[in-house]
Amino acid sequence: MSTAAPILLTPGPLTTSARTRQAMMVDWGSWDDRFNQLTASLCEQLLAIINGGDSHHCVPLQGSGTFAVEAAIGTLVPRDGKVLVLINGAYGKRLAKICEVLGRPFSTFETAEDQPTTAADVDRLLQADSTITHVALIHCETSTGILNPLPEIAQVIQRHGKRLIIDAMSSFGALPIDAAQVPFDALIAASGKCLEGVPGMGFVFAKKQALAAAQGNSHSLAMDLFDQHAYMAKTGQWRFTPPTHVVAALHEALLQYNEEGGLPARHQRYAANCQTLLDGMAELGLRSFLPAAIQAPIIVTFHAPSDPRYQFKDFYERVKAKGFILYPGKLTQVETFRVGCIGHVNQAEMQAAVAAIAQALQEMCRSELAREVG
Amino acid sequence: MSTAAPILLTPGPLTTSARTRQAMMVDWGSWDDRFNQLTASLCEQLLAIINGGDSHHCVPLQGSGTFAVEAAIGTLVPRDGKVLVLINGAYGKRLAKICEVLGRPFSTFETAEDQPTTAADVDRLLQADSTITHVALIHCETSTGILNPLPEIAQVIQRHGKRLIIDAMSSFGALPIDAAQVPFDALIAASGKCLEGVPGMGFVFAKKQALAAAQGNSHSLAMDLFDQHAYMAKTGQWRFTPPTHVVAALHEALLQYNEEGGLPARHQRYAANCQTLLDGMAELGLRSFLPAAIQAPIIVTFHAPSDPRYQFKDFYERVKAKGFILYPGKLTQVETFRVGCIGHVNQAEMQAAVAAIAQALQEMCRSELAREVG
Repeated sequence: MSTAAPILLTPGPLTTSARTRQAMMVDWGSWDDRFNQLTASLCEQLLAIINGGDSHHCVPLQGSGTFAVEAAIGTLVPRDGKVLVLINGAYGKRLAKICEVLGRPFSTFETAEDQPTTAADVDRLLQADSTITHVALIHCETSTGILNPLPEIAQVIQRHGKRLIIDAMSSFGALPIDAAQVPFDALIAASGKCLEGVPGMGFVFAKKQALAAAQGNSHSLAMDLFDQHAYMAKTGQWRFTPPTHVVAALHEALLQYNEEGGLPARHQRYAANCQTLLDGMAELGLRSFLPAAIQAPIIVTFHAPSDPRYQFKDFYERVKAKGFILYPGKLTQVETFRVGCIGHVNQAEMQAAVAAIAQALQEMCRSELAREVG
Repeated sequence: MSTAAPILLTPGPLTTSARTRQAMMVDWGSWDDRFNQLTASLCEQLLAIINGGDSHHCVPLQGSGTFAVEAAIGTLVPRDGKVLVLINGAYGKRLAKICEVLGRPFSTFETAEDQPTTAADVDRLLQADSTITHVALIHCETSTGILNPLPEIAQVIQRHGKRLIIDAMSSFGALPIDAAQVPFDALIAASGKCLEGVPGMGFVFAKKQALAAAQGNSHSLAMDLFDQHAYMAKTGQWRFTPPTHVVAALHEALLQYNEEGGLPARHQRYAANCQTLLDGMAELGLRSFLPAAIQAPIIVTFHAPSDPRYQFKDFYERVKAKGFILYPGKLTQVETFRVGCIGHVNQAEMQAAVAAIAQALQEMCRSELAREVG
């Protein structure tokens, strides 16, 4: 197992299928009709996942997911708008940082990292500050794996006549979001997450009317989603050089997504991965950080073993040598590590990962004992 | 020839080697040491090409080349700076547009598309306006293929105590630029051009002192090269998810670049490609737009045939069916088309491309005659 490339149990980049990677063996002309058709098909398939073909445009953007998040805020929040940022982890904090750098007025509401934001919180906050125009929310906060109650929060925001921007980076494609049921101005995700493409592009589902009204808002040329969409609508092409191989890989990944059974099948596989992981780790005595009710089946945060012989770096290297790449914790108060449930993996791989973790922990105890005896 | 993927004779994305594409068959963990080593090796190899290891940092950035250009201007030009933008084509105009959107004061100096900017022009302009802090220049303007006299212009700028930002997107790696001889604050290029990687990332060579003084300048979180570099220097990691497969492909392309003989060999191959193309097209009676003295061996603009039966779209499709993808012209006054000389191609392919162009033009005459006779 240690000679093959390790399996990535991380929140992305993640393990992709050989078929997806194989789609990168062709060089595409970015100006050519065939590539334009690939982009159009990509956007159409993405819109279908949220049932958003009538209400939203899909605007793809070069760069990582954070580029797309910044582009959505910069394009859709007018310069005199005000954003309420809901925070319960590192990615929520990043939303606030983006508003700060872009000079968009904003306020923040922060709950503990194991506390979802509630619709009642948002109701109260919007009541208290009528100058707020937009609310920005992380759907599944990758720092912990916590799921925020999107549908309830979205309803409250609509009732107040405000607009919602959703960072759905790590949930999109695996957790259901129906644009006809959940009102939002923008939902942002990326290629290298639950769709199981390779990293290198993001995309924003922008409400048609909101995007049409967004000309001139953007702080940036490259990240202007109004311009990006207008150019693509007119020419079929990306405005600046697209990451052609990444686009082709995502297109191929989407074909497989649909063949697998779309969102319900993807969700089911990840939920099974997550349950297998939780069960196996519980048997090893490793506790998950979040209660089950707010744990999304995307990535799980575990408390580090309390044994003083445990060190993450050593643990990580031992598990990696057995074929699995884990992810460090991102909490400041508690020592943790994370294990992703997403990517081209299934329950068999999750069981093998738990076995590798068990072995690694045993080795760490043994080698320490050996030193003590020696 | 028509069944295989066509050869791209475009300014990028371009044709890459199978070995480069093969490097994308592995999924890398973006947090893993092995990937950090790949990034470090990439930056080191890139710096070596400009002999800039002592004087400059290499800051890679997600996205297309334009993202890196915008990032360089946003990061390195203080908000109260003033940029003189030298224009003789579409990419020079884009530099001015970036300054406008970012709110950086700027002035422009435009010459005709077949007229290089001269050092004397720049001398005069800097003499006339002492508020200019930075000069921005396109090295090889892809709209036409024209080469601007970088070393002479750089000397004048240094003599005036001003700072130079070079967009070397389509020349870097093929035309020599020595950071020890040519003073500049920033030089920008991308993965999918003369290095023959796949598109999806750019990079900026930033003068160490200039970058150190640039904290807080940037208009953007994602495009802040100061932050991007500081984070990478501290952790070895990219600040936001890197396009891992694109990075791996560029690393593999650089190994091949060095095996081929580095810049001199790359330049020689492209120059031979360009000469083969020019000779072959001249035999067909197709005139190049630029005189030889200012024609870079990167991309050649040709006047469209004067025959009224010529239509670019028809021509393009016929040449494509024979295995080659050409590029449309970008001039407003004259009808032209472009043929790239760069990518994993050599003289044999250029000869075959000329033959395909000859056949396509013959077919267009014949089919028109057939219609006339019919």
